[in-house]
Amino acid sequence: MSSVTALIYGADKPGIVAKVSGWIHEQGSNVLHADQHLDRQENVFFPRVERECATGTNPVSQGASFQKMVELELDMKVKIGFQNDSPKVGVMVSKADHCFHDLALRFRSGEWSGEIAGVISNHDSLRGTSMSYDLPFNFFPVTEGSKADAEAKQLAWIKNEKIDLLILARYMQILSADFLDKVCCPVINIHHSFLPSFAGASPYHQAYARGVKLIGATAHYVTKDLDEGPIIGQDVTRVSHRHGPKDLIEKGRDLEKLVLSTAVRRHLQNRVLIYQNKTVVFD
Amino acid sequence: MSSVTALIYGADKPGIVAKVSGWIHEQGSNVLHADQHLDRQENVFFPRVERECATGTNPVSQGASFQKMVELELDMKVKIGFQNDSPKVGVMVSKADHCFHDLALRFRSGEWSGEIAGVISNHDSLRGTSMSYDLPFNFFPVTEGSKADAEAKQLAWIKNEKIDLLILARYMQILSADFLDKVCCPVINIHHSFLPSFAGASPYHQAYARGVKLIGATAHYVTKDLDEGPIIGQDVTRVSHRHGPKDLIEKGRDLEKLVLSTAVRRHLQNRVLIYQNKTVVFD
Amino acid sequence: MSSVTALIYGADKPGIVAKVSGWIHEQGSNVLHADQHLDRQENVFFPRVERECATGTNPVSQGASFQKMVELELDMKVKIGFQNDSPKVGVMVSKADHCFHDLALRFRSGEWSGEIAGVISNHDSLRGTSMSYDLPFNFFPVTEGSKADAEAKQLAWIKNEKIDLLILARYMQILSADFLDKVCCPVINIHHSFLPSFAGASPYHQAYARGVKLIGATAHYVTKDLDEGPIIGQDVTRVSHRHGPKDLIEKGRDLEKLVLSTAVRRHLQNRVLIYQNKTVVFD
Amino acid sequence: MSSVTALIYGADKPGIVAKVSGWIHEQGSNVLHADQHLDRQENVFFPRVERECATGTNPVSQGASFQKMVELELDMKVKIGFQNDSPKVGVMVSKADHCFHDLALRFRSGEWSGEIAGVISNHDSLRGTSMSYDLPFNFFPVTEGSKADAEAKQLAWIKNEKIDLLILARYMQILSADFLDKVCCPVINIHHSFLPSFAGASPYHQAYARGVKLIGATAHYVTKDLDEGPIIGQDVTRVSHRHGPKDLIEKGRDLEKLVLSTAVRRHLQNRVLIYQNKTVVFD
Repeated sequence: MSSVTALIYGADKPGIVAKVSGWIHEQGSNVLHADQHLDRQENVFFPRVERECATGTNPVSQGASFQKMVELELDMKVKIGFQNDSPKVGVMVSKADHCFHDLALRFRSGEWSGEIAGVISNHDSLRGTSMSYDLPFNFFPVTEGSKADAEAKQLAWIKNEKIDLLILARYMQILSADFLDKVCCPVINIHHSFLPSFAGASPYHQAYARGVKLIGATAHYVTKDLDEGPIIGQDVTRVSHRHGPKDLIEKGRDLEKLVLSTAVRRHLQNRVLIYQNKTVVFD
Repeated sequence: MSSVTALIYGADKPGIVAKVSGWIHEQGSNVLHADQHLDRQENVFFPRVERECATGTNPVSQGASFQKMVELELDMKVKIGFQNDSPKVGVMVSKADHCFHDLALRFRSGEWSGEIAGVISNHDSLRGTSMSYDLPFNFFPVTEGSKADAEAKQLAWIKNEKIDLLILARYMQILSADFLDKVCCPVINIHHSFLPSFAGASPYHQAYARGVKLIGATAHYVTKDLDEGPIIGQDVTRVSHRHGPKDLIEKGRDLEKLVLSTAVRRHLQNRVLIYQNKTVVFD
Repeated sequence: MSSVTALIYGADKPGIVAKVSGWIHEQGSNVLHADQHLDRQENVFFPRVERECATGTNPVSQGASFQKMVELELDMKVKIGFQNDSPKVGVMVSKADHCFHDLALRFRSGEWSGEIAGVISNHDSLRGTSMSYDLPFNFFPVTEGSKADAEAKQLAWIKNEKIDLLILARYMQILSADFLDKVCCPVINIHHSFLPSFAGASPYHQAYARGVKLIGATAHYVTKDLDEGPIIGQDVTRVSHRHGPKDLIEKGRDLEKLVLSTAVRRHLQNRVLIYQNKTVVFD
Repeated sequence: MSSVTALIYGADKPGIVAKVSGWIHEQGSNVLHADQHLDRQENVFFPRVERECATGTNPVSQGASFQKMVELELDMKVKIGFQNDSPKVGVMVSKADHCFHDLALRFRSGEWSGEIAGVISNHDSLRGTSMSYDLPFNFFPVTEGSKADAEAKQLAWIKNEKIDLLILARYMQILSADFLDKVCCPVINIHHSFLPSFAGASPYHQAYARGVKLIGATAHYVTKDLDEGPIIGQDVTRVSHRHGPKDLIEKGRDLEKLVLSTAVRRHLQNRVLIYQNKTVVFD
């Protein structure tokens, strides 16, 4: 049997759980895992339900019926994911390769559902690395005058490949508001600081200058406000006066890999909902 | 409105969530928070439901009806907790006072529901400390020949005070199987190691001798098998070759306070279910 | 035998360690523990040496000779601490009592050298708590017009008591530049966020609004720039979408106690040097 | 200028630091970093000194003179490392590839000094992976009767390649006492539990059965007592009742990579001394 995940959200009202679970029971399918969250300040209710489809049923058409029921009868929104979904992922990189290796190895090992459809870069440096994983490499250089042009090429590739998720694996260019308007899939970025501390450029140098005793990394969805998007995950590691900027960069690499991969896993498993520029992560 | 928490557990079967949430909806009450766990190896299903009682209803009689429904119609077991429950807690101590101060201050500040009904000790050392919190202090010395006698006095006090939870806050005597048979409330202990490492006496000295790089603390329910009961929570802290046994003991104290208090909070909020000598913690 | 700690700092040059250790060896005393740090960017060298004084010698006059030697022959600065130093500590509080209990219990238990000479507050709330530890309580109310007057009283008390260290244990008033000019001892503050994130008022509410996945606490020396002083220690704890501002405040309390007490311990053990608005912590 | 690291150890006596630093100063070289540890229980003193060699001097012959001086005049042992040392590393694997990828990428990126000379495996599975990093792959199958024979081949390869460090990157065979007698380089292993908990086979299954709330990984030098060698580093990660054995294995992989790579880095930087089946790690 295959499983279906539904992330639901909308204004709280009595009887939502009864309605949803009653419907599932009537279809002859069974709840594998359910979780929910009630934001009392906003009165928004977020159930997440993962269920088995009964043998002989069609998960896709059942999912569509479910969505219709939730929208009509409960006036809530719903996002459906299927266990055998294999989303197509685009990865954007610049010169640093640590996050890219980490992602490529995880997808290749089958740890995650989904596959990397290709790589976009503003440098040619990682072409060989990309090739070693048999991943198409798209070199779209970005110079002062050519950004709009480069973004048009990026968007064309993303559209053409039907990319479901774009991952910025230490891509060091800022995406324009126009790009973000036109890209029609979620974009996850790894920022190499514990946001909101040290947004912007050179966060490890900023951290060194301030003399912090922990450095961090933050994975977030990208929005038009630089480094201000909804946070999916964060982690930190201890540093001391002995660590110069170079040490922070080295220690940070392991942190970045871990935080980015955790965020991507959660996204691929349909565990993340965005609202009010924050995330609900059903972990 | 007051809230009621139900921890349910039993063999998994289709429709449990639909049944439970339907019943709650019919009573006019609303689910505040729900969580659940399915142990696929054992096919045991564990829902936890926290709901608001509708105004004008009696949470206690409603709780009883709910329990009856679950037992009869779903053949599952249920444990009910009421928000305004104020469980009576007994604390057992020896000479170390750090966990005792921590617990006493938390109960006194109103951070937790419940109240400490009194203190039992095999030493007279903490009488003054106990008095400073206005807590009755029961000194029941335990010598080689007097253990049975002391335990009889302890049990009499526990029964007389109608204790709902017994906390061993670094109580350094082993409770006999007979005591554990007769005490009719859960007993939570803090062990000063990362169990199962370093069970038994002097765990910090054992840890020092082994040269570990992290020390830990473990809060668990007490069973007849010493240091083998279901684990509620654990945490660790980093140590190095610079730390001798005395340093480990000092560093460990902060860990013990934190791990014990976290476990007690979870227990008091009706978040812990025991099965198969393990715990399900809805956190 | 008693021990003496010297924290030294100044421009790096060849032979510093040879000079210092040769001098110590000639005095017939022995190095117990030595550590050092070289800031290559600034070319500043920071040795820390803890040594045993030989029997029959006077640690204080020896300390003075040592200081003279280091200043004249190495042109470096030195800060001497004696093992049996019992610094006098002043604690400033407002209404929250968790950090105050934690500090008072640690000093009383003998975990730290030093003693609390008394408590200053802008509210009368913790008078009883202070009394329960036999600590003099000074209520100096701060109203809009009376701040200068209150600070004069605070300074008079600090001077009169010969306070060596002032701890702001969740004291919720900003100390004026004038106060900081005149107070002649270090001041340690606990800020309830992971600085530089969420400086200023209501950091837990700021953290909730931003949707961070970790909250933190920071202990730092107080300077005229609010929440910008040299950081002594920081730590974080995990939170999720389930935690509202009230939960963050509760979870934060344990963090604040731990981070503040760790910073105070380091300071009392003469392990912290300040330079360039950062700290070197020999831990 | 190049740097030289000396790890010294032996019975404590007055004047060691003065002697060592005086000698270094006389040679015209300068201390870059010094650290030391005194084990008061055993009266063993462990200084670590990293110094710059003066221009025009020969670090190797100077290192030899230093070693002679320490042995003769201080009666202590010394281990010398040179910055431009490029140790030859052998990696032993079975079927799991996560630690192997991690090590291979770090060596290849230049993050560490040293190079992998080749790979030994009891399975043929990782031949292609090994090839992709241009690393010679030695398949020495181990069957019930062939272990002695396989170990002879392994030892011959190790001797022939002049291997300086052997890393067991999830190699799932137990090395015999005879092998450990004959191998003349240190052997580092990653054990997938928080030792001493869950030594031996299937630690994640053991951890699941016990219901622990944290799982761990331990990097240690291999000795004849299985999983009992000196611990170099350990770390843990949080788990809950939701995680079955498969989840623990997946979560553990990231932990294993991090703990093993941290231990290898420390070893390669000459930061680890072994004594009394424990390590002193100058970090």
